[in-house]
Amino acid sequence: MAVGLKSLPLLHSIDGLRLGTTAAGLKKRDHRDLVIMEIAVGSNVAAVFTRNAFQAAPVTIAKKHLASASPRYLLINSGNANAGTGETGLDDAQATCESLAKLADCRATEVLPFSTGVIGERLPMGKLNAALPVAYSELSELGWADAATAIMTTDTVTKGASEVAEVDAGRLTITGIAKGAGMIRPNMATMLCFIATDAKVPRLLLQATLNHAVRRSFNRITVDGDTSTNDACVLIATGCGPVDIPNEHAEGYPALLRAVVGMTERLATAIIRDAEGATKFITVEVTQAANEAEAEQVAFTVAESPLVKTAFFGSDPNWGRFLAAIGRAKVDGLEVGRVNILLDDRHIVEGGTAAADYTEEIGQAIMAKAEIRLRIELGRGDHEARVWTSDLSHDYIRINADYRS
Amino acid sequence: MAVGLKSLPLLHSIDGLRLGTTAAGLKKRDHRDLVIMEIAVGSNVAAVFTRNAFQAAPVTIAKKHLASASPRYLLINSGNANAGTGETGLDDAQATCESLAKLADCRATEVLPFSTGVIGERLPMGKLNAALPVAYSELSELGWADAATAIMTTDTVTKGASEVAEVDAGRLTITGIAKGAGMIRPNMATMLCFIATDAKVPRLLLQATLNHAVRRSFNRITVDGDTSTNDACVLIATGCGPVDIPNEHAEGYPALLRAVVGMTERLATAIIRDAEGATKFITVEVTQAANEAEAEQVAFTVAESPLVKTAFFGSDPNWGRFLAAIGRAKVDGLEVGRVNILLDDRHIVEGGTAAADYTEEIGQAIMAKAEIRLRIELGRGDHEARVWTSDLSHDYIRINADYRS
Repeated sequence: MAVGLKSLPLLHSIDGLRLGTTAAGLKKRDHRDLVIMEIAVGSNVAAVFTRNAFQAAPVTIAKKHLASASPRYLLINSGNANAGTGETGLDDAQATCESLAKLADCRATEVLPFSTGVIGERLPMGKLNAALPVAYSELSELGWADAATAIMTTDTVTKGASEVAEVDAGRLTITGIAKGAGMIRPNMATMLCFIATDAKVPRLLLQATLNHAVRRSFNRITVDGDTSTNDACVLIATGCGPVDIPNEHAEGYPALLRAVVGMTERLATAIIRDAEGATKFITVEVTQAANEAEAEQVAFTVAESPLVKTAFFGSDPNWGRFLAAIGRAKVDGLEVGRVNILLDDRHIVEGGTAAADYTEEIGQAIMAKAEIRLRIELGRGDHEARVWTSDLSHDYIRINADYRS
Repeated sequence: MAVGLKSLPLLHSIDGLRLGTTAAGLKKRDHRDLVIMEIAVGSNVAAVFTRNAFQAAPVTIAKKHLASASPRYLLINSGNANAGTGETGLDDAQATCESLAKLADCRATEVLPFSTGVIGERLPMGKLNAALPVAYSELSELGWADAATAIMTTDTVTKGASEVAEVDAGRLTITGIAKGAGMIRPNMATMLCFIATDAKVPRLLLQATLNHAVRRSFNRITVDGDTSTNDACVLIATGCGPVDIPNEHAEGYPALLRAVVGMTERLATAIIRDAEGATKFITVEVTQAANEAEAEQVAFTVAESPLVKTAFFGSDPNWGRFLAAIGRAKVDGLEVGRVNILLDDRHIVEGGTAAADYTEEIGQAIMAKAEIRLRIELGRGDHEARVWTSDLSHDYIRINADYRS
């Protein structure tokens, strides 16, 4: 199902980070659904959370804890999002942190909770409390692959990436896992991503690096325009490796930045490749924009147009739909006579109308591919933006319209 | 297919307006596809056009002509949108106006052209020119129903409404027809609406009345968020009836305003009822908003969410999706604990979480209906907005993904 997704690559362990997983019984059929991440003292943690006003209880607690203490543990469960659960949900999220803190002999504020799964149902506290000691006893630096499996909900493949960069000071290792397959699936609340490096990076620089990377990766993907109540992306720097990056001018920073950007792009696009019902992986590039914001606006308008998405599903090079979507993207003073559209580097529209040597057969051949690049040249400047999306298929409707069972 | 749409009602003729239709051969199988509307000298015409930057050639010409002369004729063809056709398309649209002007002995600037149908193909000028005299010879005050049929493209039912209001000065008659079934269907460019009254109304007041009505009708419907390159809504006042409305304080104005608003609502909702693949007709009402703009924003975000639309198709009372869509509607300072959601007057969410006495069975029973009202109370003020939409079904995908044939 997932478009061009390989099986999980080798995930390098990160010094100073251990993971323990178990099956707490939140998912059906004894699948792993609980992860504890233990972070060495002295680590720094940066995070980006959903901007949805309806944020789930664990998001509220995680933000509060992150603001008041240096995290020692991340506690992640799948199978239940603890979203739409009101005050009770907040109490439950707080209680899970306290349970783990007691077990690990730390303060509850040093635990960040994350949940993903069914919306509107209470966390099964008994099951969670019973499973915590088991997951805790499993803590190991080799736990990444199991954790990648445990955070899945409706994902069809596990998503992870790992990289080693050599800089003068030595090796910098970075590993990440993610889950998500639609913004929210039938009552599923969705995107989570955890990335860690053994480099030593101050917290503000780590946060700036994550913000930069997320802006052009997780904030540039769209399945259906819906953002979830539980989305979170975390970047941890344990500082247990040989590379010290005290500031952005440090020798190792370009390698770190490149690695974090590459990792978030790989994990974000993996979510699109595994998008609900996806049969195509589509890159929408908007170039020659007057500024990046307008490039992004056009790219998202096109990427989220149901008519564009169904055209991709139907392998129909229907450039009238591309034009119509561009035209309604609210770009002030857009000159339609300057707009070009390319499919995989082949001009299909030039100057707002069909390219002279374009034929339907050319367009159809490209649209039939599983991975397609749509480029839109606005003829207004030299800014650009790139967005990744999937097509809109019968399976998307089937998956999302079928009654929850 | 169309949800709750009755067959075309009796359409009263309007003094001072004649319609002639014929089959020019732009549609398949000899269906009517060409309409001439003749408007009495002294009539006033108001119009609202698509805001899509990619406006079709006839839209450009119609706007230009409307700005420079008082229209005597409207020339409407279906089967071909004359959109995405560049300079040639402008020349063609202009030439059709000139042909009709010659036939009718008026100036070309007194003709407004409208096209709807396939995008990216040239108007078949030979066929049009051959058919113009036939349509012209058919001009009759009784031509409304035939015209309603002739402007259809992928509509499954004809759309029209008619009303007579009694005011002190006498009878005021108003009749309208519309077409549209999706914003753009496989290369179809879409919404057209023509309304006429026999009242005498100055042009500026007529335009203000139309703007007011369109804002809460045609601008409040959404099938898939896509606006077409050809959309237009025209309001004609022939002044041939007994009612004179010199300004908004005139005795007849409330009746006119009510009639125009009612007509645009009826025709706009008819388009949603006939929306591509629609199995449900959904009214999204947002109340208790701080201002109308934010009410509209929340209503559209919910109405256009693919996850909300598939939930309606699946008759799934998935309130987590409603919450998530409201939460991402970018309402500054939204307090989720004050948000209520009602389905057909039944509370399903109170204070941001499931209503105390709500059960899935209650929600399912309402969601299974063909016409559903979703009300969202934001708890922020006393402004509101109402948007009409359809569900997202397998048929929508089938209709829009099937290759053009």
